[in-house]
Amino acid sequence: MSLESATRLTPAGEGQWVGELGEDWDILGNTNGGYMLAMASRAGTEATGGRVPVSVTGHYLRPGRAGPIEVTTEVVREGRRFATVRSHLSQNGSVILTTLGSFADNAEDDPEILLSDAEIPDLPPPEECIHVLPVGGLPFPPPFLAQLEMRVEEAMTGMLRGQPVGEFVTRGWLRPSDGEQLSPHFLVLACDAFPPTTFNGGLPIAWTPTLELTAHIRRPHTQGWLRCLNRTRFISSGFIEVDGLIWDQEDRLVAQARQLALLPKA
Amino acid sequence: MSLESATRLTPAGEGQWVGELGEDWDILGNTNGGYMLAMASRAGTEATGGRVPVSVTGHYLRPGRAGPIEVTTEVVREGRRFATVRSHLSQNGSVILTTLGSFADNAEDDPEILLSDAEIPDLPPPEECIHVLPVGGLPFPPPFLAQLEMRVEEAMTGMLRGQPVGEFVTRGWLRPSDGEQLSPHFLVLACDAFPPTTFNGGLPIAWTPTLELTAHIRRPHTQGWLRCLNRTRFISSGFIEVDGLIWDQEDRLVAQARQLALLPKA
Repeated sequence: MSLESATRLTPAGEGQWVGELGEDWDILGNTNGGYMLAMASRAGTEATGGRVPVSVTGHYLRPGRAGPIEVTTEVVREGRRFATVRSHLSQNGSVILTTLGSFADNAEDDPEILLSDAEIPDLPPPEECIHVLPVGGLPFPPPFLAQLEMRVEEAMTGMLRGQPVGEFVTRGWLRPSDGEQLSPHFLVLACDAFPPTTFNGGLPIAWTPTLELTAHIRRPHTQGWLRCLNRTRFISSGFIEVDGLIWDQEDRLVAQARQLALLPKA
Repeated sequence: MSLESATRLTPAGEGQWVGELGEDWDILGNTNGGYMLAMASRAGTEATGGRVPVSVTGHYLRPGRAGPIEVTTEVVREGRRFATVRSHLSQNGSVILTTLGSFADNAEDDPEILLSDAEIPDLPPPEECIHVLPVGGLPFPPPFLAQLEMRVEEAMTGMLRGQPVGEFVTRGWLRPSDGEQLSPHFLVLACDAFPPTTFNGGLPIAWTPTLELTAHIRRPHTQGWLRCLNRTRFISSGFIEVDGLIWDQEDRLVAQARQLALLPKA
């Protein structure tokens, strides 16, 4: 199912929407966090007459499950250049995700690059990479990888066979799987689509629930393959940070993300 | 005035508070964004019976001015381990800052470091650094630097005399100025206390208003000098990102921050 379909929202009153968390967007039965934030992003766009996400933060309160969802949006301020929206995603009357985001005029698109001080990951072209697909009956790769096309280097697949690279890094290509156009909400999803960096770092932690995820969308109207890099530098005081960078095919930064996840208590 | 005094809030009804933005917390007449986020952080602590900030995001809607402020807090969820709070800071009936944050049990303090993959800035000891103080009548250094003690290397002071280092980096020591204890809210403030990285990078941009700032507080109960590093890697598509890291005197990460600021339109 395309992200466009999977984030469809039906108006249900002033600042009220209903939708459905898709069944194939989960990992071990819990709905993927990036997908849920993409739905909140979509809600923000709907609530502001088509503005696009610039910075969206979500705090994850409870796991999401496939099934009906209610979304409430509140436009805190609607300015000329930016609108600020907060939202709740709820299931069975309980908030599962609460968000705060700024949304810009859809026409904004400033290609100028004044500084780009980062090493863009050197990946083989997508067609020479390995297409990561779920395997029926196994939890990893998770089923939601059937909803998009993820391609990684051979070495990156080792973590799925218990042969991690030993670096707290994941990287690879990403695009919608079905010829669907990239949307700004797909970029939000892309900020949390890769396996946990701990898998590849070799730290045997299966489940690092996200407390908070912030996605900055620099170029909402990019097309083609996304070149993604996720890196963890700090695992301490019970928390894991994951920092994400996404470039387009012309090596322009399109998104930047950071999440704070929980280290399970021993 | 200590941060403790400058963020004092008086209850004014259920989830309602009144306070005052201090006069000496501004830059070119606009209240410092880190100070305003520290006030929201304090409000979150008050609203949750003393929990401490873990991740706090603010979206800046209008400039703050010295004077009375109203704060409204809403506890979205109060869990065993974390409480999630959203707040508005308002002046004259208009929201100037809207925030979303998670707050943890005050007793949480897990010193374990499993990964720390970053170069801690090599600074001379604070007593060999230069104490940056405001100069009467000049906009820079801003007056709020009298409210805390900032110490930087000689080379870092060049940006105030039009001799930037040419790197989009600021770094130095920080602590409260008056013998006040560090608080988790001071750590939030510390995430936005240094001059813009563009000053030191040599890009002649005087005013880069913050759209959004997220502060992660790893160790709320640190004491002593804070070792701070702020770096900008991406100035593109009309936005500037600033990434901040703060360590304590024992080289433990205490806070990590990111902000998205606006590049003025030509």
